[in-house]
Amino acid sequence: MPYIDLENNLPGIRGLMSFRKETAMPLTELANTLLRDSDGLSPAERELIATRVSYLNDCFYCQTSHGAIASHYLGGDTDLVDRLKKGDEEVSVSDKLKALLQIASKVQHGGKSVTQQDIDRARLCGASDKDIHDTVLIAAAFCMYNRYVDGLDALTPTDEESYHARAKQVAENGYTNRIFSIEQPTPVLK
Amino acid sequence: MPYIDLENNLPGIRGLMSFRKETAMPLTELANTLLRDSDGLSPAERELIATRVSYLNDCFYCQTSHGAIASHYLGGDTDLVDRLKKGDEEVSVSDKLKALLQIASKVQHGGKSVTQQDIDRARLCGASDKDIHDTVLIAAAFCMYNRYVDGLDALTPTDEESYHARAKQVAENGYTNRIFSIEQPTPVLK
Repeated sequence: MPYIDLENNLPGIRGLMSFRKETAMPLTELANTLLRDSDGLSPAERELIATRVSYLNDCFYCQTSHGAIASHYLGGDTDLVDRLKKGDEEVSVSDKLKALLQIASKVQHGGKSVTQQDIDRARLCGASDKDIHDTVLIAAAFCMYNRYVDGLDALTPTDEESYHARAKQVAENGYTNRIFSIEQPTPVLK
Repeated sequence: MPYIDLENNLPGIRGLMSFRKETAMPLTELANTLLRDSDGLSPAERELIATRVSYLNDCFYCQTSHGAIASHYLGGDTDLVDRLKKGDEEVSVSDKLKALLQIASKVQHGGKSVTQQDIDRARLCGASDKDIHDTVLIAAAFCMYNRYVDGLDALTPTDEESYHARAKQVAENGYTNRIFSIEQPTPVLK
């Protein structure tokens, strides 16, 4: 039960964004720019970073929704997403992604936790300046989104299947459409 | 010395935003919408919340720049800003602002730290749904901005006077102008 009267029963951040549309626009644009870009990091890698940070922040809504989107990009591999968000180092992903996930985990703890060694390791694995920038900003942004959702106690569906149905829509149409869909009657996730 | 080559020597978040203009736009729009609004919370109160959270996150650049803007709005009262950012409960501000700062401090720690009692206290002091929403989102957003700045080790001027000079410009023209100024030759803060 959200702490404020949102005047809607949309789940998670969607309910909050419908309450305050002026801030919804830049929040959605930021997610779309950071998570849908395929220059350097792939959309799947970006969603995995978001999922890992949301797991570390213990935000069920965000880790489940972004985990479902990552899994959709990866052909439905929920096991890989689940192991990776929990920090399993044996998971079969590139050394570059592992190094960037290490940076993201440091950012979740606090900006000053990132060290030159973390950056050097990522560079040795092939990370560019833009990859490192985007990893830090994705991790920082999810420290915002997670706190926004849980700090206002947004509605959090517990049925994981509903997140997968939504993930398919987001993967196909992007986050921008989520804003427009707020204006129209939208089926609420169960 | 920033961890990545920003190709500019602008201070703090301005250097990062100049490096990646696609994300700079929503980041600036979000700050402008959340911090310049005077419906409900005043711009001074909003900057004080941002300053308190940036202090708790130990981000020198953000606490000094937003503290300077808050102080500018308050007629130059740097002492009040300094005491308030450090959590001094005896400072002479409204009970409503004190209750909202308590919520902001909880959000900084983690979204789930906010309790129904925190919300009830704010409401008893006259906080509206929008005040509570904006407090949570300002606090959450500064958990992002702070991590973005420190996670990439952005240039951080140590001369506090330069922050006051910049604060006057932001108070008069808003954050949106900071984006446009990136496109033009801008004097670097010493």
